[in-house]
Amino acid sequence: MFREKIKVLDCTIRDGGLINKHDFDHRFVREVYKALSAAGVDYIEVGYKNSRKLFSPSEYGAWKFCDDEDIQKVIKGIESKTKISVMVDVGRVDLEDVKPASESPVDMFRVASYVKDIDKAIHMANHLADKGYETTINIMAISRDQGKELEEALEQIEKESKINALYIVDSFGALYQETTERLVKLFRNIVKRAEVGFHGHNNQQLAFGNTIEAIIHDANYLDGTVYGIGRAAGNCPLELLVGFLKNPKFDLRPILDLISKEFIPLRKKIEWGYIIPYAISGMMNEHPRAAMALRNSDKREDYRSFYESLVNIGLD
Amino acid sequence: MFREKIKVLDCTIRDGGLINKHDFDHRFVREVYKALSAAGVDYIEVGYKNSRKLFSPSEYGAWKFCDDEDIQKVIKGIESKTKISVMVDVGRVDLEDVKPASESPVDMFRVASYVKDIDKAIHMANHLADKGYETTINIMAISRDQGKELEEALEQIEKESKINALYIVDSFGALYQETTERLVKLFRNIVKRAEVGFHGHNNQQLAFGNTIEAIIHDANYLDGTVYGIGRAAGNCPLELLVGFLKNPKFDLRPILDLISKEFIPLRKKIEWGYIIPYAISGMMNEHPRAAMALRNSDKREDYRSFYESLVNIGLD
Repeated sequence: MFREKIKVLDCTIRDGGLINKHDFDHRFVREVYKALSAAGVDYIEVGYKNSRKLFSPSEYGAWKFCDDEDIQKVIKGIESKTKISVMVDVGRVDLEDVKPASESPVDMFRVASYVKDIDKAIHMANHLADKGYETTINIMAISRDQGKELEEALEQIEKESKINALYIVDSFGALYQETTERLVKLFRNIVKRAEVGFHGHNNQQLAFGNTIEAIIHDANYLDGTVYGIGRAAGNCPLELLVGFLKNPKFDLRPILDLISKEFIPLRKKIEWGYIIPYAISGMMNEHPRAAMALRNSDKREDYRSFYESLVNIGLD
Repeated sequence: MFREKIKVLDCTIRDGGLINKHDFDHRFVREVYKALSAAGVDYIEVGYKNSRKLFSPSEYGAWKFCDDEDIQKVIKGIESKTKISVMVDVGRVDLEDVKPASESPVDMFRVASYVKDIDKAIHMANHLADKGYETTINIMAISRDQGKELEEALEQIEKESKINALYIVDSFGALYQETTERLVKLFRNIVKRAEVGFHGHNNQQLAFGNTIEAIIHDANYLDGTVYGIGRAAGNCPLELLVGFLKNPKFDLRPILDLISKEFIPLRKKIEWGYIIPYAISGMMNEHPRAAMALRNSDKREDYRSFYESLVNIGLD
């Protein structure tokens, strides 16, 4: 599959940071940036820009705040064409603290939003676009929000926003190929001004398959993470995505080295991937919250009663 | 996805047996049979029927030979509608040793064959059909054999065989959705007398996605294994497949219990699943042989040099 317009965005540090309170040390982030630059990945997303009024730096690591100085430290001296992306949640960032793009190492801001908050997301993205950044809006929990409200949100984005790409985010890992196809076509039909992006979660081992499906139907911004790291079941493995895309600008070898040296040891310390309670929450189209709580309890392998607790939701 | 014609075949013991020389003990096999009977799975495949002239019982476990007496032991006294399947390789079985179906606990024989051996496979399958068994032919390594020879093999099967189903076997885990779709359509177009089956391997985390793709295009015999067990990267996880199929005859809960109690401990002793060298052999459309050797060496995490060794095949 070679299509020149395709952009690969690695969100290893950002989505992986949801497992460890964004507390990757600078050495680790620098190794990731170095390897993925050598691999030719288009964007690296290093974390969230959150307000310190809402989250305490004593509780979270640097990548919950993504100060320009921290980003400078990890990229300094590394030859790279890879752009830097930072995610912002609606209502959690002080927009006035964001400098103009010309004064910042950040190239792109991605605004994460539910359908119901799309007004605010458009306002935030436009504010950041006016400061000179590339922008995207990432519509979360799409598997729960597929009705008329979604269509209206897409129409509003088409009319009012200045974004470069609009993402489908399968937060619950609940999409199958047919639902992915339908969503990408819907997005493409309504939104002409921006590319469509896809961010999968791997609860049912479908993050990569759904990403391929999205590519087939003309999504051009594709998210992956190294060795699939990410909250709960994790994401589309970047190494599989790069192996599939035949674009000669990519080189798989630095990613393989990075997995050998950094991610195999890391996986022994923190947990992500194909784990049955996450598979169950994907099947049931539920947030992985309850499954994550189960994994931190002494019932971590008690799959049946977890399944039954979800089946019985709404029957009481 | 509910389609009454769909049959689910679990090959946990057969494909999992490729990791441990078919040496599962009778207690374990009985637990699997009991749980999958309760789950409503249509077939359980317990191993290979091989000639003792070719393989020594001192080197392999019982499920390399699948004597009727061993099968009787594990199924005795368990209430079940689940049928028993056994696999045979072309040229490795003494057909005269196989009793008539009416005298055996086996319901179905599946003949594994490469395209080049299709004559022999048809002969074997017809011999077994004449003895009263259900039969299938499973065409292995399909990702390497997609040309004119495959079409001729399909035409010959349509003309000469008496099989119930014809399987696409993605031995190398190299298929993507588009190649799966093309193959299922090709099989459906040529072979009218039998159902189409799909057996995926999970090298690139696509076994489940490709199985869904096969279902969409009208494959009705679907293979899975508990917790995805199987040689190298393993197979389509049965629990995901059963979760996807909305047929009320299936019950996921006994499978979840089986994973908790038997497969989580087993996975700590033997290795299968998403492991980078297997992902690489899938991408490169290669047999996992070299990757398995790597995993048994002191270079087991040296992914880059393994990748380079495959890239350089044919360049010497």
